[in-house]
This record gives sequence, structure tokens and C-alpha cells, in this order.
Amino acid sequence: MADDETVRNESEGFPNSDAAFDLTGGSPEPELRELIGDMSPDEFRRFGHQAVDWLADYFEHPERYPVQPDVTPGALVDALPRSAPDQGEPMDRILADFERQIVPHVTHWNHPGFMGYFATSGSMPGVLAEALIAGLNNIGLLWKTSPALVELEQVTLRWLAEWLGLPKDWFGMTLAGASVASLHAVIAAREAAKEQARVNGKRFDLDKLTLYTSEQAHSSIEKTMLVLGLPRENCRKVGVDDEFRMRAELLENLIQEDLAGGFQPFCIVGTIGTTSTTSVDPIAALADIAESHSLWFHVDAAYAGAAGILPEKRHYLDGCERADTFLLNPHKWLFTPMDLTAFYCRRPEELRQALSLVPAYLRSEQDERAVNFMEYAVPLGRRFRALKLWFVMRYFGRAGLMANLREHIRLAEGFGKRVDEHPDFERIALTPFSVVCFRYKPAGVDEGRLNAINQRLIEAINATGEFFLSSTVLHDQFTLRVAIGNIHTREKHVERLWELMLEKSSEALTS
Amino acid sequence: MADDETVRNESEGFPNSDAAFDLTGGSPEPELRELIGDMSPDEFRRFGHQAVDWLADYFEHPERYPVQPDVTPGALVDALPRSAPDQGEPMDRILADFERQIVPHVTHWNHPGFMGYFATSGSMPGVLAEALIAGLNNIGLLWKTSPALVELEQVTLRWLAEWLGLPKDWFGMTLAGASVASLHAVIAAREAAKEQARVNGKRFDLDKLTLYTSEQAHSSIEKTMLVLGLPRENCRKVGVDDEFRMRAELLENLIQEDLAGGFQPFCIVGTIGTTSTTSVDPIAALADIAESHSLWFHVDAAYAGAAGILPEKRHYLDGCERADTFLLNPHKWLFTPMDLTAFYCRRPEELRQALSLVPAYLRSEQDERAVNFMEYAVPLGRRFRALKLWFVMRYFGRAGLMANLREHIRLAEGFGKRVDEHPDFERIALTPFSVVCFRYKPAGVDEGRLNAINQRLIEAINATGEFFLSSTVLHDQFTLRVAIGNIHTREKHVERLWELMLEKSSEALTS
Repeated sequence: MADDETVRNESEGFPNSDAAFDLTGGSPEPELRELIGDMSPDEFRRFGHQAVDWLADYFEHPERYPVQPDVTPGALVDALPRSAPDQGEPMDRILADFERQIVPHVTHWNHPGFMGYFATSGSMPGVLAEALIAGLNNIGLLWKTSPALVELEQVTLRWLAEWLGLPKDWFGMTLAGASVASLHAVIAAREAAKEQARVNGKRFDLDKLTLYTSEQAHSSIEKTMLVLGLPRENCRKVGVDDEFRMRAELLENLIQEDLAGGFQPFCIVGTIGTTSTTSVDPIAALADIAESHSLWFHVDAAYAGAAGILPEKRHYLDGCERADTFLLNPHKWLFTPMDLTAFYCRRPEELRQALSLVPAYLRSEQDERAVNFMEYAVPLGRRFRALKLWFVMRYFGRAGLMANLREHIRLAEGFGKRVDEHPDFERIALTPFSVVCFRYKPAGVDEGRLNAINQRLIEAINATGEFFLSSTVLHDQFTLRVAIGNIHTREKHVERLWELMLEKSSEALTS
Repeated sequence: MADDETVRNESEGFPNSDAAFDLTGGSPEPELRELIGDMSPDEFRRFGHQAVDWLADYFEHPERYPVQPDVTPGALVDALPRSAPDQGEPMDRILADFERQIVPHVTHWNHPGFMGYFATSGSMPGVLAEALIAGLNNIGLLWKTSPALVELEQVTLRWLAEWLGLPKDWFGMTLAGASVASLHAVIAAREAAKEQARVNGKRFDLDKLTLYTSEQAHSSIEKTMLVLGLPRENCRKVGVDDEFRMRAELLENLIQEDLAGGFQPFCIVGTIGTTSTTSVDPIAALADIAESHSLWFHVDAAYAGAAGILPEKRHYLDGCERADTFLLNPHKWLFTPMDLTAFYCRRPEELRQALSLVPAYLRSEQDERAVNFMEYAVPLGRRFRALKLWFVMRYFGRAGLMANLREHIRLAEGFGKRVDEHPDFERIALTPFSVVCFRYKPAGVDEGRLNAINQRLIEAINATGEFFLSSTVLHDQFTLRVAIGNIHTREKHVERLWELMLEKSSEALTS
């Protein structure tokens, strides 16, 4: 096969002098390898050690790589063979190609200078767990397809609820991400509204359902409307105050207007730690409004929920115990590798009613403790995600996780202080957690020029390869975000970022 | 903290004499460990090697464990501490507890005797990749958040399409599972129907949308209706022929009836490899019908799609090139660890139209090759799944994967032959791939007693811990399924299963 020849030749053509992966030990050539069956356990042991060593080295020196690769779209597609190989290839070659072909196109989320979006970390205990998860390859369909998977999920999510001061009797399960989890919340909300309409003898009209969230909420909330085929404009975006928090009185007004206009309000979504500024909606006030109108109340605490384990930050979660559904992402700020969203539901029967294909009268578990998560979830199968959360919670303990979060918060506050104290920079939002929103605003420069200057500034910072920042727009002002959340980020990185900020800002001004 | 003390004591109380994990090397006690930051790379290296060694040993001797654990629901919950530890714990203790507390509650999908549902395998090359995926911890939001993640996904999915003889220009992306992928298909179908209604000036009524699939289709198809809030009864389950294949003429009749009754047919879902029997719907005939009525045509080839890489089985996929969406699960029968569904779409603009929050006129990628999968998907973030598919496709090559699939098919046919040749057993369905459906039917026993006898038979087999089979009901007959798909399964396992079948069947008859 001509295509295959191409593959082999290209693959062999890469220089290997600087590769960390051992190319000399060599696995047997494919023609010698038994064609049926898996890799041998001995080979797995050898290459597994190599992979672990490579990762240990990577964790030791992440700064060796630019945070963001300097590559053009399509470059990797063009560099790789157009067809997959017909004959198998030795693992040492694959590992070497991983290092030489793939890694140079990777954006390094595990780099201490990664401060974009919400910085996240796959901590090493979590990585160890992922290897074991993949090796066991458990698929959670029913309880019996892995009792350990189901029950460790129950245990770790109850542990986490306790740390967060949330009701321990809430139903908890993991999902792949906050978007999918919020989808579950809105599905349950729709089901509850349908049931309410039935009980009250009212017409239930999907097109009339209205959902309320802040204009600062994550796009995944609006997306649930698209997914469910509900009119996008029925996602009401409630205005915020000066600190980017949803204004409860505007929410109440909107609901009243909608009720008068023949709409059917069904769900309020509050956010703890909005995507742009990490602002916190007035959760207790939203819970009051939800209660008074019998609406479903969902809380998205994807990023900042983790801070609930800190006594000094727990007040931001006040009122959450009144939510119907609540989510946070241990894969964001609890050092758990992607993906693991913790999703809690106070009224799991609504979820089950909406999503179970088994009618209630036919449910016949041998035991009510043998929970089948598939009856409560859109996905049927699930990975053994709980194992990594168990590793992380035990290895760090609450004290270790608290120490890391506090350090991130301290570093963010330190950066914010530098911004505040410098006459040419201004903070754009409060910093309740570990994200600083600010901009460069040199004296005597027209407001009209500032957005372009700040755009050039962030591009210059990111082009150094030392840091990766993302931006947002607040009150029409182009705003830089410094998101501290990587477990490798230290004081020295923040100091260096500030140094660079001063250097590049004067360049951005004059260029 | 009293709770924490409990944790430590319970944890220390487990006997460690038979643990493979080294407890003597010991990581520093938590009070000595630096509280801020991750594990040290040296510690990672040491424990990583231990985890790899444990896995190598596990892969060498999976038969050491019963396939399904003999545990009662809630046993693990009761055995684990009620609270998470306040202080961190040493990794050697966590690994030892993994082995002694968690593994005994695991159902061993990687055991060669696992023949339930669709047997799957996380092959060792895939496991290596998972460790690297977790270490890099890339999160695919936008192209720039990891060019490697996005482009390797494009490359591997195009490679796979080529192997399967599918159009190479189809849009491909990975998703977490077939349920979620079929949800995307139906969302795109709904969007297309809406657009059609708009163009034709017809009313678009969600409650009138009807979807057609076989009564043998996977439950996830019906579930998409629940998720999307469409009437469950609008999922029309088309009858099947003697070989459990959807009857095209019944489909055509149902569509005609629905059109006459004011419904709006919008989607046909065909299956290649149904869940119970692995039957294959008449794909080309369904494509004809979909075309003639302008309906979306989705093909669910979750399990059997993999067989498309075999020239002698490729005919089962004939007609797929006319599908609008198509999915298969490399995590089922292509030796890729859970989870990775390959999802293809011929008309990705429908998906984007339905799911992108960015209006078309505002899309401003620097380059059209910088694809942002989030615009086509329900989830926002994604793991670097493509890396494991790349490892698996390269390590085995097409030839290696073909050899494994052929061996599974040969083993299944061998088992089927034993069934056919024995007067007291009968095959209930054809075996086009690697799943055998059969039952015990001893001469002279009333049909009325057979279901209970076969139920006892499967329970007796599973109770041995040597095998795990699942069952189904076909024509009201309780049916046993032997699903070959684990990469460790060999001739000797099939022989032993048959031996056990003969032994336990006579016991089931008389007990």
C-alpha cells in the first residue's frame, strides 16, 4: 500500500536526537509481533515507565515549553500522514512522535503561566488515578456493571458536599462538564413545570417557557435553550449591578412581566463565580424569588464552588442549600484532571421522571441502594471518574486543598494590589477569588484608544510564550483577565508577569 | 477532628500483607509534606512506576479476580469513611487502599470472561495514552486552547473514515458516548426540519415531530425524545423481520399514516448491530425512504461499525455514505479506553446552526481551518480523546485490529457451532459479528418452563466468577448472550464457557 509506505517513511524521517523517549530499547518490529491480542504486559511495563518518566520530567520543567504554541491552523493536519498505518508500529516510535509531533502543537494548560479562562490543573495524584481508571476500563451502566464505580461516586460526592457545607442527603452524580450538567438541571426544571401545569390544569407550552439568568452567566445556560429547542429569546438575561451581580429586583420585574404576558417562567439560574469577573449572584434573594413563584432554582458554581471549602469564603455559597440543582467542577479548581463535574440535585425524582425509560411501576432493583445513574442522566455509560476525585481528596486532604486555594487567592490579591497601586492600570472588577480583571489606562490617553492598546498588550504578553491570558469586555472596555488556578503557579510567576506587563504596556502604547 | 481520626484509623487498620503496592518505601507523612503545591515529580515517578507495575500485573493475570464481585449494594459505601480526610494521606496508603478496598468491588470489564452487553477493552496502548492525556490535561474549548487536540481529532477521525470506506470529507468529532452522539444527530434533524418548515411556509410544531427506529434499536434513541421534551410516543418503533431487521415497508407505511394524520416525520434512525442480537437494518432501503420524504437519516453503528474495517464485513455498512449522521464507538470494539465515540456529520452546518451561539455574521476565525468544536456540540470543553485513538490505530495498525476482530468473530462462530450441534441448545438469532444469542432447550421440557430454567442457568454461570454474561428477551424467550469483544479472550475461555454451560444447564434443569 503506497499510503502506508508514506506513513512509515515520514515517521522514520523525524530527527530523534533530542527525544526523551528511548528509541534504542526498541519494541519488536510489527512483522514479528503477534498480530492477535494486546501489547504484552512486559512491554506495557517498560513503556509505562517511560511515559511516567516523561510526565515527571514534564511536571518538573513545564516552563521549557511556550504556554501557547506558535503554530498556524492546519499545520499538524498537514504534518501528519494522510492515512493510518496498515501495519502496526512500534510503541517507541509512537511515543517519540508524541513528543516531537504532537507536543509542539499543545497549549500547555499545566504550565504555571497558563492564566487564561479558568486555569485548571490535572494534579499528579489525579493523573495516577486516570491511569488506573483507564486500566480497569469500567463502564458504569448499571450498579452491577461496577459497584465500585457507583458507590465511590456516592461516597466522594457526599464527602465533597460535607466540605462545602451542602446538605449531605442531596443526590449527587458526576457528569462530563458544566454544560451537560446544566442541561440536566434545565431538563429537570422543564419536567417539574410540566407536572405543575398538569396538577394545576394549565396548558403546558414549550414555546412559552422562560428561563432567567444574569447577563454575566456562562453561555452554556443559554445553550440549554438551543439544545432543548426552546426559543432562544426566552432565555432572559437579567441586568447586573456595579459588581456584576444579578439584580434581584430586575429579576422579579421580568418574571411579573412574563406572567402578565402569558409566558411560563420555569427556571432561575444563579452563578457563583461568573465567567468574566467571578462575581457572585445574590443567591439567597434568588432562592426567595424562585420559591415565591415555584420555579426551579439551579446554581452554577463551576469554578468558584471549590472556594466553599474555605471557611472565609463559604459565605458566597449561602443560600445554595435552597437550590434544586447545584454544580461545581473539581476539574476546574480542585486539581482533578478533566473531566469531572459534580452535580447535585435536591429533587432527583424529577430527573428520573424526565430521563428514565423504566416506568416507576416496573422498577425492580434488588435493592434500592443499587443506584443506576443512567436513570437520572442523559449519558448511558460513565467512566470511573470518582476514583480520581478520591485520590485527590485523600492525597491533599481538605487542609492541602485549602492551602492551595488560599495561595492562589493570595497571589491574585497581590497582583490586584500591583494594579491598584500603579497609576496607569485600573482594576475593572472585584477579585473575590483568584481572577483579576483590569486594564492598562495610561494617563492622558483617550478612552477611544484604550481598547486597541489593551488588545495589543495581551497579544504581546501571549506572544512571549511565558504566559497565556484571556480577555473579556466589561462596560464596552476591553479587559484583561489574570486567572490564577494552576497548581504550579508561584509568587515568582506573578512577579514576572507584572514585570512583563509594565514592559509590554509601554510598547503597546507607542506601537 | 473526630471524623478525621476515624478515617485514619480505619485506613490504617486494613491488613497489608497481600498488597502488591509497596508500603515500605513510604511517602513522607502529611505533616512533613509541603502543604502548597502538587506531589513532587520524584514522588510521581515512583508511584507512577508502582501504578504501571500494578497494571502490568493486572493485565497479566486478570483471571485472578472474579469477573463480577460478590458484594451487596451499599457494601463499599458502608466500608469507606463517612468523611474525607482533613489532612492529606500518603500516596502509598491510597494505592494500597485502592487495591484492598476498591478493586474487590470492581466488575472486571478487562477480564477475558467478561462477555456481557458489548464486551470492550481498554487496550494497553490506549491506557498509556490516557496517562499522557491526563498529564497534559488539555481542555478543548477553542482551537487555540489546544491546536493539537483539535487537529489530531480531525486527523484520526478522517483516518477512521477511510478505513471504514466512508466519505473522507465528512465532518467528524469525538463525543463522550453514543447516547450523547445520537442526541446531536436528533438535534440536527430537528433543526433541519425547522428550516424545511420555514422554507415551505409550514407550521413547525415540536409536539408533532415523529422519529422512526426499529423496535430493536438502542434505548438511547427513544431517550433523545425524552431529553428534547418531545412526546415519547412520537418515537415510532418499527417492526422487524425474522432476523430482527427493521422492515422497510412497515416504515414507509408508518410515515404515510403519520403524514396523513398531521404529524411531521423528521428523522429515521437505522442500526448496524442492534443491542440484543447485533442485527443490521436494511440501510440502503432506509436511505431511500429518508431521501424520498426529505428526512434526516442517522445511523447508529456503535458496536458493529468497527467491523467495517474488515473487507468481508464491509457490506453491512453499505448505504451509510447516504446517512446524514453516523456514529461508532471505538471504546466498544476498537480497543480504545472509555470514552470515545466517533461522530460524523454530512451536513455540519445544521449542527452549527442549532448549537452555535455565535451568529454566522459574527464568526471571525482567523482561519477557517481553526475549527472550534464547541460550535457543533452540546459540551463546551472536551478531553484530548484523539490521542488514545491515535495510539491505538498506530500501535495495532489496521492489520492488527483486523486480526483481533477476526479472532473474536471466529470465537463467536465457534461457540455458535457448539450451540447448533447440541440437541439441547438452540440459537435464537444470527451471528453476523461476535455476539451469540441462544438458549438452553432440553428435549421434552415445556416451553413454559424454559425462561425460568435459562434465568437460573445464567445466574449459575455468573456466580462462578469465571464469566459474566448478560441476557435479553426475544419473542418472549429469555435469551442468553455471549458477547466476545475483550482483547484478552482466547479459544480456551470459550471452551471453558461451553464446558460450564453443559454442567450448569443440567443443574438448572433439575434445581
